[in-house]
Amino acid sequence: MLTRTLKFVNKSPIVTFTTDFGLQDHYVGTMKGVVLNICPEAILVDICHEVPPYDIVSGALTIAAAYKYFPAGTVHVLIVDPGVGGVRRPIIAEVSSQTFVCPDNGLLSLVLDQEGDVAVRHATSDRYFLHPVSNTFHGRDIFSPVAAHIAAGVPVDSLGPLIKDYVELAIATPTLAMGNIQGSVLKIDRFGNVVTNITPGHLVDAFGAGTPFVVRIAGCAISDIRTSYAGAPQGQLFAIFGSMGRLEISANQSSAAALLGVKPGTVVEVRKT
Amino acid sequence: MLTRTLKFVNKSPIVTFTTDFGLQDHYVGTMKGVVLNICPEAILVDICHEVPPYDIVSGALTIAAAYKYFPAGTVHVLIVDPGVGGVRRPIIAEVSSQTFVCPDNGLLSLVLDQEGDVAVRHATSDRYFLHPVSNTFHGRDIFSPVAAHIAAGVPVDSLGPLIKDYVELAIATPTLAMGNIQGSVLKIDRFGNVVTNITPGHLVDAFGAGTPFVVRIAGCAISDIRTSYAGAPQGQLFAIFGSMGRLEISANQSSAAALLGVKPGTVVEVRKT
Amino acid sequence: MLTRTLKFVNKSPIVTFTTDFGLQDHYVGTMKGVVLNICPEAILVDICHEVPPYDIVSGALTIAAAYKYFPAGTVHVLIVDPGVGGVRRPIIAEVSSQTFVCPDNGLLSLVLDQEGDVAVRHATSDRYFLHPVSNTFHGRDIFSPVAAHIAAGVPVDSLGPLIKDYVELAIATPTLAMGNIQGSVLKIDRFGNVVTNITPGHLVDAFGAGTPFVVRIAGCAISDIRTSYAGAPQGQLFAIFGSMGRLEISANQSSAAALLGVKPGTVVEVRKT
Repeated sequence: MLTRTLKFVNKSPIVTFTTDFGLQDHYVGTMKGVVLNICPEAILVDICHEVPPYDIVSGALTIAAAYKYFPAGTVHVLIVDPGVGGVRRPIIAEVSSQTFVCPDNGLLSLVLDQEGDVAVRHATSDRYFLHPVSNTFHGRDIFSPVAAHIAAGVPVDSLGPLIKDYVELAIATPTLAMGNIQGSVLKIDRFGNVVTNITPGHLVDAFGAGTPFVVRIAGCAISDIRTSYAGAPQGQLFAIFGSMGRLEISANQSSAAALLGVKPGTVVEVRKT
Repeated sequence: MLTRTLKFVNKSPIVTFTTDFGLQDHYVGTMKGVVLNICPEAILVDICHEVPPYDIVSGALTIAAAYKYFPAGTVHVLIVDPGVGGVRRPIIAEVSSQTFVCPDNGLLSLVLDQEGDVAVRHATSDRYFLHPVSNTFHGRDIFSPVAAHIAAGVPVDSLGPLIKDYVELAIATPTLAMGNIQGSVLKIDRFGNVVTNITPGHLVDAFGAGTPFVVRIAGCAISDIRTSYAGAPQGQLFAIFGSMGRLEISANQSSAAALLGVKPGTVVEVRKT
Repeated sequence: MLTRTLKFVNKSPIVTFTTDFGLQDHYVGTMKGVVLNICPEAILVDICHEVPPYDIVSGALTIAAAYKYFPAGTVHVLIVDPGVGGVRRPIIAEVSSQTFVCPDNGLLSLVLDQEGDVAVRHATSDRYFLHPVSNTFHGRDIFSPVAAHIAAGVPVDSLGPLIKDYVELAIATPTLAMGNIQGSVLKIDRFGNVVTNITPGHLVDAFGAGTPFVVRIAGCAISDIRTSYAGAPQGQLFAIFGSMGRLEISANQSSAAALLGVKPGTVVEVRKT
């Protein structure tokens, strides 16, 4: 018993939150209360609550960029949930020694893209839900309590059956047209960096390694390809592979998105030069 | 000694914050430093810092929706404090095995509405304040240190005398006019849901259980009463009893508040049909 | 071994964050994962992530106002980093029993102003970095892992050599012109309070203690000098020494900044009356 307690000292379970709930209401605080009530030793971590409302792609990008920096054993609660109260299932995914609890709507697509071994379950054991279960706030009544029980040591296989037909979002992947890469903008970040769906692997596959290229977006041709923001002239557009491992259009200390007038969905083309 | 330490491992005291301080300044971080200085083992939880500036009703709604999901023993710091530095008292309320530390301006009104047994004290023991006490930031100098001392085990009855004349805000409650319920909008949430002051109890009292009704607001008559967002046609208004236990006007994946052009204070009427 | 573990129970290391990363992306969550991976027992505290992008002066003000309320041993991560990926150095400063990890660009200037004994190091030991080190996100790859290793007990002197030529920002300090104090606005806070670079010490030095004065800003002469917000008529401008220890222009329950139309950099003059 002493041994077990001391183990907790050195390794408290981590529960993270990635949601579109924003920070102006009671939603986030309420979920934290629910988790601490069930698993008082949990370490709570906010990854992001400012996912744009209902924007599953943006939520998928955020968790895909962050999760691999967390320790094994971390439990992630993900909620962007336009279908709350409808027929979509709550799911639990075990991926790379971490656990994800979320609605079955594709939020995990970009995590699953990066991982081989995945076990996904339909969370059906309602004895781990908070009752009465509302139709409007499953973050409080289903996702948070299930995550807290997992953090507290409830075996995942007691939470529901394995499923194979979980939703994988067809998040726009680049295509090839006449030898050029046709991609699109996935999100604009806080600094106005324009994050695309194009990775270094796409360039190698299309052009071979080390081939010079130009990026065309919103009528601009950007041939200044850089490896850091710092050297660039202020306010001038350039392309860079950013910290999410994707091609970004940036401007040193300015918003590239504002300069270009682009938004998620805008077409981006990469051509050999 | 060992026993006592191990007790802390399994049950660290929780201190939460609900304020209108926002997140762009040093205010919130400073308060957390104060608490950790006095009670290093405290678990700090942000419930909300984006209560609109000086909006006591909104702060009262937020804490009233969240507190009951926290464990017994939680200490809540509440600060929406237009009267800082004036004559309003700092108070400590013991409610339902939890403790609330806040200015005496009605912030607790909606918590107290839900609870029978309440003990409220005027926090007068200034040996638990941070000195010198400023006139402009009692969150740092009074509320946070008092909460931290409570979390650290200081008995509440040593913090000041019981009082009965604490402020209870007359937060608009619905009235009956010619058999109709006359209520009002209390807040708009992140998703544009329009939260009213009307509860299921008000409908049962006025019309009897299960009576069909229509909601009139801003020139619209809404007779589509739903139990979840998911089934509704996108962008169409409906009424629902939301996760705060209040009648809300919503629109699936749209802002009902923007569609209606309403704000806190707007009149809402419920009629039998 | 048991003793050492139990020591951690009562005194977990604190790691704080003050950044311009905002809350809508993965940046903050990712850094927290990095810290918890290296130092699972760390208590993570957000001081502020809404420093305006690239605004080093605002970041410097925020940490300078907050740090002294944290316990000895706290490790602060500070990131406002327009020069990421360029030649600016990552530094570690030991100040007043606390440790600061940040880019060498003046972010610490207002902390160092308040402290006598300071030891600053260039963080060169890249075995404490996360590899591969990107050119775009040193918060994840350098500052957070270095801070986490310090929190986990790595001696600071093993992280890099002492330096003397670290950057100190010439944050506008008031000057004297014809016997008047010429200062400027440093920031506008959440409530619209206009925070200047003028301290009580500047007034004593210029005019002697207790001399009456008037504040001139944006064409207004403000002679109403108060010690709290509460007594002031609503919406009327007054001057006050605020919780940051600086002269502020405020308006009770209104934005003084909006009333005056001022912003950081606006000139403020204080004259004897």
